[in-house]
Amino acid sequence: KEIIVLPGDGVGREVMEAAKTVLRAIADEYDHQFVFHEHEIGGAAIDQYGVPLPEETIDACMHGDAILLGAVGGPKWDHVAPDIRPEKGLLGIRKQLGLYANLRPVKGFKALLQASPLKEEILGESDILIVRELTGGLYFGRPSERRDSGNTVVDTLSYTREEMERIIETGFESAMKRRKKLTSVDKANVLESSRMWREIVEEKAAQYPEVEVEHLLVDAAAMKLITEPSRFDVIVTENLFGDILSDEASVLTGSLGMLPSASLRRDGVGMYEPVHGSAPDIAGKGVANPIGMILSAAMMLRYSFGLEEEAREIERAVDECLEQGYFTPDLFIPGGTPVGTAEMTARIIENVT
Amino acid sequence: KEIIVLPGDGVGREVMEAAKTVLRAIADEYDHQFVFHEHEIGGAAIDQYGVPLPEETIDACMHGDAILLGAVGGPKWDHVAPDIRPEKGLLGIRKQLGLYANLRPVKGFKALLQASPLKEEILGESDILIVRELTGGLYFGRPSERRDSGNTVVDTLSYTREEMERIIETGFESAMKRRKKLTSVDKANVLESSRMWREIVEEKAAQYPEVEVEHLLVDAAAMKLITEPSRFDVIVTENLFGDILSDEASVLTGSLGMLPSASLRRDGVGMYEPVHGSAPDIAGKGVANPIGMILSAAMMLRYSFGLEEEAREIERAVDECLEQGYFTPDLFIPGGTPVGTAEMTARIIENVT
Ligand SMILES: CC(C)[C@H](C(=O)O)[C@@H](O)C(=O)O
Ligand SMILES: CC(C)[C@H](C(=O)O)[C@@H](O)C(=O)O
Repeated sequence: KEIIVLPGDGVGREVMEAAKTVLRAIADEYDHQFVFHEHEIGGAAIDQYGVPLPEETIDACMHGDAILLGAVGGPKWDHVAPDIRPEKGLLGIRKQLGLYANLRPVKGFKALLQASPLKEEILGESDILIVRELTGGLYFGRPSERRDSGNTVVDTLSYTREEMERIIETGFESAMKRRKKLTSVDKANVLESSRMWREIVEEKAAQYPEVEVEHLLVDAAAMKLITEPSRFDVIVTENLFGDILSDEASVLTGSLGMLPSASLRRDGVGMYEPVHGSAPDIAGKGVANPIGMILSAAMMLRYSFGLEEEAREIERAVDECLEQGYFTPDLFIPGGTPVGTAEMTARIIENVT
Repeated sequence: KEIIVLPGDGVGREVMEAAKTVLRAIADEYDHQFVFHEHEIGGAAIDQYGVPLPEETIDACMHGDAILLGAVGGPKWDHVAPDIRPEKGLLGIRKQLGLYANLRPVKGFKALLQASPLKEEILGESDILIVRELTGGLYFGRPSERRDSGNTVVDTLSYTREEMERIIETGFESAMKRRKKLTSVDKANVLESSRMWREIVEEKAAQYPEVEVEHLLVDAAAMKLITEPSRFDVIVTENLFGDILSDEASVLTGSLGMLPSASLRRDGVGMYEPVHGSAPDIAGKGVANPIGMILSAAMMLRYSFGLEEEAREIERAVDECLEQGYFTPDLFIPGGTPVGTAEMTARIIENVT
């Protein structure tokens, strides 16, 4: 398998090393061959090519079997022109490859109950899958503009019916494979786009009679995610709402550093990246939590390569490592052992049998 | 003082009775005269006049000294035409009166530490003021449209420089009266409107050298509000981000039912309403938490009538009542006494001396 590796910036480069190390261990164990092709994106690409998403990176992505991405951005590029910002690289690749379905699983880890700001009895056995639309909405409206000699600024939130239909279908399909409960999040009491979204959810609901569907307004959802996290199974929502809710949901795991994601399109092409960003404050210190990236690699094995057993093996090894008490500085396990990125990775690999 | 009373729908009508009762007690105690003029808005106005915001309601609001609003909406009106939905009444009055500055204080109550889903040590002494822009953004873009025979839907997020400047000023002024820390929330790595917002915050920061300013992306803010609530003093943000973050912040108090708000314009005209909605599930049962509405009435005394002492008296009475262990079903105080709306109100009044 040819894996395109885009380490990007900041801790992205550190956690990518960790994920490659784990994948090599899996390849040895299960007798697979993974070939890594590294390319630049984000700030690193700006430094080397002058643009955040070089042609050669896009080309490679189009021809690989799957893509692993670290993180992009950092203060170093805060003052480049808006059109060539590091984030444009990430948004560009999502859009150009048509990766519209962003899956963000959020699951409490037993060993980390104490690391969460939420009370244990509230956390319960929370296990949520956020299905976020990734190539539409405010992120990709008409080019934003300033008008009246810079006195008015306009961003547009637009969606086509087809863009909504396909992600809502992903939501229903995901629910069918899990506990068959789907929460659709919108702001239908204010936005026309949300009213169309809700209509489509209702239409699709008729095709999935086994799935229990509920609608929540985004403000109420932001509250209930904290007050009753265990009521959720699959949450499906548009791009910006999904961005906000998935970062918020990280509190269920104790750290944003734990969360993986898969960005897919219908034919199975996929990009895998942790939900966390480039974390400039801790970059280069060797203390970044590699678990979000490593679990993203596991999602790649599952969704792009159909290697379910290998994916579970990684997930089990991560669980075990936490049970053994190893934690990076973003976490806390009472009586456990604080470790850096490299040692955490080594401990995870020890658990890969 | 002539107070325009808009009870609206659902529990709005119940909590409004509670607030009027408390205001009457304050009037007796301090020898003021408050005259209440009741008008319809939202679903109740649709039933009576066919529109959610009748002319006579707007007229009354323009001439009163202050406005108290309960809540609008409910399933009964879910199928009216989008243009005359109950929420349009609320949005219409905010816009027509130019109430651009929405102040939402969120403070942990000692008696309610156990009612919050957050751990005590995380909650700390959290005391946040959310300053939300209320008359711009996605809520009031160009009329939303469906195009291509209904295949494309567009909402617009637009702001003028002046609209941003005035609310950001409110943010800085509020910070000056508190702990002098301002967190500006935007999505500047994606939205042009957020980049303009950030520029203006930077410009204004130069005029308030004493205020410590930080920028947070909305996704990070949604997380930090839960992981480090006590780091915040004043949060200033645009309309939709403020909507989401303030509902989310209600978890710090244990219940959305506790939160008051003031919607102001520069000349001191103000509308006061709880942050919660019409809560159709509990409407008519006499169990709604009246505290959000009662504390909104206290904000009215403070901001529209300059009656600081009377406002504090109400706030103190609410605190005391909670210390005495009285709580409505949305809350929980171990060893306390569960009560309904009327008894909670009576207990608060007993504490008004
Ligand atoms: C870096 C940024 C553009 C991105 C987003 O908003 O999508 C990030 O927050 C994410 O969630 O992947
Ligand atoms: C009812 C709704 C339109 C309103 C809003 O979104 O502003 C409410 O959620 C609020 O926060 O006051």
